Amino acid sequence: MGKFNALVVHGGAPTAVMNASLYGAVREAGKHGEIEHFYAAVGGSGAILRERFLDLKTVPDELVSLLPATPASAIGTSRDALEAGDYAAIARILQKHNIRHVFFNGGNGTMDTCGKVYRACREAGAPVQVIGIPKTIDNDIAVTDHAPGYGSAARYIAGTVSEISQDVRSLPIHVCIVETMGRNCGWITAASALARTGCGDGPDLIYLPERPFDPRRFLEDVERLHREKGGVLVAASEGLRDLGGNPIVEPVVRIGRAAYYGDVGSHLSNLVIRELGIKARSEKPGIGGRASIAFQSPLDCAEAEEAGRRAVRAAWDGQTGVMVGLRRISDSPYRTEDILVPIEQVMLRERTMPDEFISPEGNDVTPAFLQWCRPLLGGPLRRFVSFRQLL
Amino acid sequence: MGKFNALVVHGGAPTAVMNASLYGAVREAGKHGEIEHFYAAVGGSGAILRERFLDLKTVPDELVSLLPATPASAIGTSRDALEAGDYAAIARILQKHNIRHVFFNGGNGTMDTCGKVYRACREAGAPVQVIGIPKTIDNDIAVTDHAPGYGSAARYIAGTVSEISQDVRSLPIHVCIVETMGRNCGWITAASALARTGCGDGPDLIYLPERPFDPRRFLEDVERLHREKGGVLVAASEGLRDLGGNPIVEPVVRIGRAAYYGDVGSHLSNLVIRELGIKARSEKPGIGGRASIAFQSPLDCAEAEEAGRRAVRAAWDGQTGVMVGLRRISDSPYRTEDILVPIEQVMLRERTMPDEFISPEGNDVTPAFLQWCRPLLGGPLRRFVSFRQLL
Repeated sequence: MGKFNALVVHGGAPTAVMNASLYGAVREAGKHGEIEHFYAAVGGSGAILRERFLDLKTVPDELVSLLPATPASAIGTSRDALEAGDYAAIARILQKHNIRHVFFNGGNGTMDTCGKVYRACREAGAPVQVIGIPKTIDNDIAVTDHAPGYGSAARYIAGTVSEISQDVRSLPIHVCIVETMGRNCGWITAASALARTGCGDGPDLIYLPERPFDPRRFLEDVERLHREKGGVLVAASEGLRDLGGNPIVEPVVRIGRAAYYGDVGSHLSNLVIRELGIKARSEKPGIGGRASIAFQSPLDCAEAEEAGRRAVRAAWDGQTGVMVGLRRISDSPYRTEDILVPIEQVMLRERTMPDEFISPEGNDVTPAFLQWCRPLLGGPLRRFVSFRQLL
Repeated sequence: MGKFNALVVHGGAPTAVMNASLYGAVREAGKHGEIEHFYAAVGGSGAILRERFLDLKTVPDELVSLLPATPASAIGTSRDALEAGDYAAIARILQKHNIRHVFFNGGNGTMDTCGKVYRACREAGAPVQVIGIPKTIDNDIAVTDHAPGYGSAARYIAGTVSEISQDVRSLPIHVCIVETMGRNCGWITAASALARTGCGDGPDLIYLPERPFDPRRFLEDVERLHREKGGVLVAASEGLRDLGGNPIVEPVVRIGRAAYYGDVGSHLSNLVIRELGIKARSEKPGIGGRASIAFQSPLDCAEAEEAGRRAVRAAWDGQTGVMVGLRRISDSPYRTEDILVPIEQVMLRERTMPDEFISPEGNDVTPAFLQWCRPLLGGPLRRFVSFRQLL
């Protein structure tokens, strides 16, 4: 089939291992002399329309080697909203540049774009194979057991909550709320439970967006735990909603159709101070949690790299309109098998936590969740003396 | 002088290396068979009055070995407010338990307690030597060049801001405010400048509590930088005050004499959204920043351990009423010399940043600060591909 070009595109918010997938794709493509230019769309899907391409084959090997340990997206990313006519235009641009393999590395929105570009190429009769690489800290992509990016976000929140809990136990004068990412899905918030080691550390209460938040029960639980333990640690999703399905925080600002909401963490800590008269504070690691290389899960990094490699191999094997994914075979020992998922099955579907992972009271996770999540951290957290272990 | 006992007390909020000083003290005391029990006051200075002591000599060596990498305070800590009569009571309790060496590991409040216990013992004619070990993430202890705990807090904020800046540059759709600890002193906030590598990464603006905050100039700077760069990253102290000296955030709740203020980060991001119509968000690592072992500065950890050892040696040498400290000899190569500071010189004095470390515009630091601070990080931050380096 002669020489041709390939293109990789990053979409949506970064993860700690997005560049590991990029690294895997670059290295795998490097095995094939037929791929003349391995382009990156610089700055996300809109960059295809602007034909802003960087040939990754020209990047010094020394820099390519650093990609797996590089946070965010080394080639830029975006939340570009493409319009109906854009997909046919993209199909034309791909043909113009002799691009036959296209890789979309992203979450649900990006998989939607991936599917639409795939359809546009098919409709145009363009000889382009389009493959999705899953990427999200939120773990809300359908069908695949989990997505690269999640394991590192989970390790970050477990590790950080573990450290914060040592602080809260050793200076037991307050209630501390850690606000966690994941507006509609509790996967990251839930992972805070892995901070528990059996020595009384880790979070005391975990609030997921999959369950309506009842402030009355929250205050009862906090008051009781404060009486029993002194310091209380709460992990709370940024997206908590009340019994009526509305965000528990008021919109601070509305500009046009966009609403900007206050922080759930500070809302809850203010509630504790006001209603219970107990000192409280909140922490919001936020973007720090998706950009942390120190808490990168080694398993997540390896799986992300392999997802990039598998995407290139899938295209090479003639596949198109699919996303690479994993099916869980067993939790312990952790085993998965590779799958290819038809892109229609993942486009814009959002996977929330199943009921069997959420405690009946709605303020914790179940052992089944811990068993499912633990291997994704890629090894135990750093070992230290848990507070009360000396005492 | 026969057998006697020693006591170590932790005070105030934890740091990432507080337990490293504890480790140094335990190991140094272990050299002296004359010290029969090496007690810890479990839960801070109030525990002396309650005679709640743990003999650290009975702790398994395997756990002691983990102390330097253990966040928070392994023996508990407090913000106990002692009363005038408590110091004489403490002097009596120390004599009752044959405690001749006392070590207070803490910040300004704890050094005040340390000095008062020293005076009470002297007045009671008690044969007790009282030594201070500096500890604070805020770096606001007087006379010593810096305090153990600060280097790790500085490394955390530099590393975290570095990673967040990669995220903000690669998805350049917003203004991001990182709220930093240090209510009255900008030392931690200032260290965010060490995230800059010369590739356009790191913070664009740095606001310290040492300078009044002018929202009009802030908005002008943000608007200009957003136009030039797309993503804008701001490091802002939690303690910013306006031109009249009042906190820039309103108290959310007042309970009795205590006022609980809103978050500076979310206040500033809301200001940007409302006044400029630019998307903005805020992050607040908070307690995570003082408990992080991943960002523990190796130099800070070593200096903290050595401070613990020196305190024990100072007591052994007959010193009392002093705090161990460091004098800077040179920045590059980094060299210090050990000093002993009369405790009166540090009691409740707060050291803010000097003018020569703050830029004339009040929204950044100076090269002199970078030169002073850089060695305290204990080595370069993790290497990765800076955004735009490939492009």
